[in-house]
Amino acid sequence: MVDATTRAYAEKQDADDPLAGLRERFVTTDPDLIYLDGNSLGRLPRATVDRLDGVLREEWGGELIGGWGHWMDLPTSVGDLIGMHLLGAASGQTVVADSTSVNLYRLAGAAVRARPGRSVIVTDDDNFPTDRYVLAGLAEDRGLQLRVVHTDPDEGVDTNTIADAVDEGTALVSLSHVAYRSGGLADMAAINRATHRSGALVLWDLCHSVGSVPVELDGTGSDLAVGCTYKYLLGGPGAPAFLYVRAGLHTELRNPVQGWFGQRDQFAMGPEYDPLPGVERFRTGTPPVLPLVAVEEGVRLLAEAGIDALRAKATALTEQFIALADARLAGHGFRLASPRDPDRRGSHVTLHHPRAEELTGALIEQANVVPDYRTPERIRFGLAAPTTSHVEVWDAVDRLVHLLEQDSGSYL
Amino acid sequence: MVDATTRAYAEKQDADDPLAGLRERFVTTDPDLIYLDGNSLGRLPRATVDRLDGVLREEWGGELIGGWGHWMDLPTSVGDLIGMHLLGAASGQTVVADSTSVNLYRLAGAAVRARPGRSVIVTDDDNFPTDRYVLAGLAEDRGLQLRVVHTDPDEGVDTNTIADAVDEGTALVSLSHVAYRSGGLADMAAINRATHRSGALVLWDLCHSVGSVPVELDGTGSDLAVGCTYKYLLGGPGAPAFLYVRAGLHTELRNPVQGWFGQRDQFAMGPEYDPLPGVERFRTGTPPVLPLVAVEEGVRLLAEAGIDALRAKATALTEQFIALADARLAGHGFRLASPRDPDRRGSHVTLHHPRAEELTGALIEQANVVPDYRTPERIRFGLAAPTTSHVEVWDAVDRLVHLLEQDSGSYL
Repeated sequence: MVDATTRAYAEKQDADDPLAGLRERFVTTDPDLIYLDGNSLGRLPRATVDRLDGVLREEWGGELIGGWGHWMDLPTSVGDLIGMHLLGAASGQTVVADSTSVNLYRLAGAAVRARPGRSVIVTDDDNFPTDRYVLAGLAEDRGLQLRVVHTDPDEGVDTNTIADAVDEGTALVSLSHVAYRSGGLADMAAINRATHRSGALVLWDLCHSVGSVPVELDGTGSDLAVGCTYKYLLGGPGAPAFLYVRAGLHTELRNPVQGWFGQRDQFAMGPEYDPLPGVERFRTGTPPVLPLVAVEEGVRLLAEAGIDALRAKATALTEQFIALADARLAGHGFRLASPRDPDRRGSHVTLHHPRAEELTGALIEQANVVPDYRTPERIRFGLAAPTTSHVEVWDAVDRLVHLLEQDSGSYL
Repeated sequence: MVDATTRAYAEKQDADDPLAGLRERFVTTDPDLIYLDGNSLGRLPRATVDRLDGVLREEWGGELIGGWGHWMDLPTSVGDLIGMHLLGAASGQTVVADSTSVNLYRLAGAAVRARPGRSVIVTDDDNFPTDRYVLAGLAEDRGLQLRVVHTDPDEGVDTNTIADAVDEGTALVSLSHVAYRSGGLADMAAINRATHRSGALVLWDLCHSVGSVPVELDGTGSDLAVGCTYKYLLGGPGAPAFLYVRAGLHTELRNPVQGWFGQRDQFAMGPEYDPLPGVERFRTGTPPVLPLVAVEEGVRLLAEAGIDALRAKATALTEQFIALADARLAGHGFRLASPRDPDRRGSHVTLHHPRAEELTGALIEQANVVPDYRTPERIRFGLAAPTTSHVEVWDAVDRLVHLLEQDSGSYL
C-alpha cells in the first residue's frame, strides 16, 4: 500500500503525470504561489494572451465590422467545442451566450412554458445561490411554486430525495451537477430517469463539473443545461456562459428573451420574431467576441488533454488531499465536508473548521496558498488538473500545518 | 456662404478641428480605408490594447482570484463614467451588464410589474428589431398587449403619435432615442412628459445616441434606459451593454432575473433573494472583465473629448455629407432618408437608392469605403466624430460618384 501522505509520493506522482507538461502553458508570475482556486477562476493560458492580441489588433483593429463575417459563428462553434469534448453532446445543441444566471432564467422560463398546467419547480437548498434566486424570481413572475428540498451540505444531491419531491405537478427540476460547496456529484442519469417518469424536464447547472468531470448530457437523456466558462474552462473573469438544449426540444421551447441573434434571417429585420429552428434560437444579444475567443483557447487546451485524463488526475489530487487531511489536519479541528467516495465528488475538496474564514485569510496572506472560504465555516480547495501538481497539494497542507503550529493552538 | 461641397472646405474643416488629434489614438492598419461604420462597431483605441494586455498578464494572470477585489466594482464605476459624462445621469443610476436585449427585457419586465392593472406596452414599427422582439415576447409571457405605432422610417419617432397612443391602460413606452435606420432623433423630454401624464413609465434605447448625441436622462425625467457600448463607446465587438434606472424607482422595481450579483451580502449566500437597495439590484451574473475595461478605455477617451465637442463635430460631418449628397448624388438616384434638420438627427446619415445593397458591396469591395446596408434599399453612413475626418467624407462621396460613373449608368 502506497503512503499518499509523503512528499516522495507527490514527487513520484508528478514525475509520472502525463499532464504535467500543461503547467508550462499557463502564465505564472509567482512561482511560490500555490493556487487552489481554479474552481473559481482558472489560470490564464499563454495561448490566450497571443490569441487576444491578434483578435484585438488584426480583427477588431484591422477587419473592423468585417470581423463579424467569422465572429458570428463563435457562439455555436465554441459551444460545439465544449459540447462535443466536455459535455457528451452532439453538435448543434450547445451555444455560448450571456451569464449562467441569465441562461438559467431563459431555459427555466422556456421549460415551464412548455409544461402548462404544472405549477412546481423543484430545486435543493444546497444549490448555488444564483440558481435559487433566479428560480424564485421566475416562479413568482409566472405564478409557480418553488419547492426547495434539503440536501446534506457535505454530500451533494440525493437521488431519492429528488425522486420523492417530483410528481405530476412538477414542470421542472433544476439542480447543480457538482455542488459548489461540498463538491458532491449528483447522479445525473438516475435523476433524469426519476424526473422524466413524471413528465417534468431537468435543467442542470454544470458550473462546477464542466471541464473536470466527464458529463454525458446526451447519454443520460438530459434536457437542458447551463454552465460557466471562467472556472475549469479557463475563459477568464466573467467570460460568457454556455447553454445546452436537447435537440428534440428545440422547436418546442421558446426563448423568453427574444433577441435579434435568435432571429431567422436576422438582417431582414422583419416585423415579427421568427426564431431559428435549432439551439441558435437561444442566442439573444450581440455575442462578446473577446471573451468568446478566450473560452475557445481554454477549451482547446482541455480538449487536447482529454476529459478522461483530466478526471483521472483530479481524482488522484483529491484522493491525495483527503489522505493528507486525515493524517495531518484532523488533529487540528478539521473535518472533511466533501464526499469520501471519489466517484461521488468533483474536483474540489472542502474542509470544515470553526475558524475557517480566518484560516483562509491566513493561508493567503501568510502562506501564499490560495483556497477560498465558503460559508459556513468551510475552506474549499480547488484542485484543477491542468495547473495543480501533487507537490503543490503536499506543500499546501504542509504550509497549513505550519501555520497552525506557529499559531500555538489559537486555531484549535 | 461657404460651399461645403469642395475638398478645400473639407481640408479647412480638418485643419480647424479641435478633435483632429483623436484620430491618432486609434489603431489603423489601412490608411486608405474610409470607415463609415463606427455606428455599428467603433474603432479600436490604442489605449485599449495596452490596457487589455495589462489586465490579462498582471491582473488575470498575476492577481488571479484576487483581481475581484477591484473588478467587482467595474460595472458600477464604468456605469457612472458613462452616466455622468454621456447620459446626464447622476452617480448611482447606471450599471454595465449583459446585452442590450437582456437589459431591455429586464427593465421592461420590471416596469410592467410596477404598473399592475395596466396591460399595454407601446413601441413603434421603426424601433430596432431586438427591441420589438423582446417586447413582444415579454408581452406574450405576461399576458400584455404590444401596441406598435407607425413611424416614418426616414424621420424617426413623432411625439404626437406616441402621445396619442398612450392612455390610462399603458404600462410602458419603449422607444429608441436615435432611430437605427434614419438617424432620426426623438424628443426625449416631450415624450417623457406625454407618457408621464398617463402614469406610464418610459424606457429608452440609447444604442445609436450614446456617445454621439448629448443625452439628459435626469434632466428630461427619464425613467429607464439601455444602450450598447460597441458603437460610439468604442468597447469592442459584443462588449456589454449598460442600463439606467432613475434613483426614485430603485426600490419599486424588481429585476426579473434575480442573480447573485444583485444580492445584498452576496457571499453570505443566504436562502432568500434580498436585492441591493440601489441600481446594483439590476446586476445579475458575473460581470465580463475584459470587455468592461475596454468599455472604460473607450468612454474615457470620449469623456476627455467632451460630448458637446463630439456632437458639434458630428453635426458638421453630417451637414457636409448631406450637402455633398444633394450636390453630387441626387442625380444618380439617391434620396436622403434621414431628417434634414440637424437637431432632429444623430450622427449617421442614410440614403435611399433602389440598388443600395449592391452599391454597398461595391463601395466596400471596389472603393475601400465601408458604410452599411439597411433594408429596404438604404445605405447608412456613420460619421463617428472621434475617427472620421471631413476629407474622408468628401473622398467617400467622390469614390461613390466615380463608382457610379465607371459603371456607365447601371446603378441608375
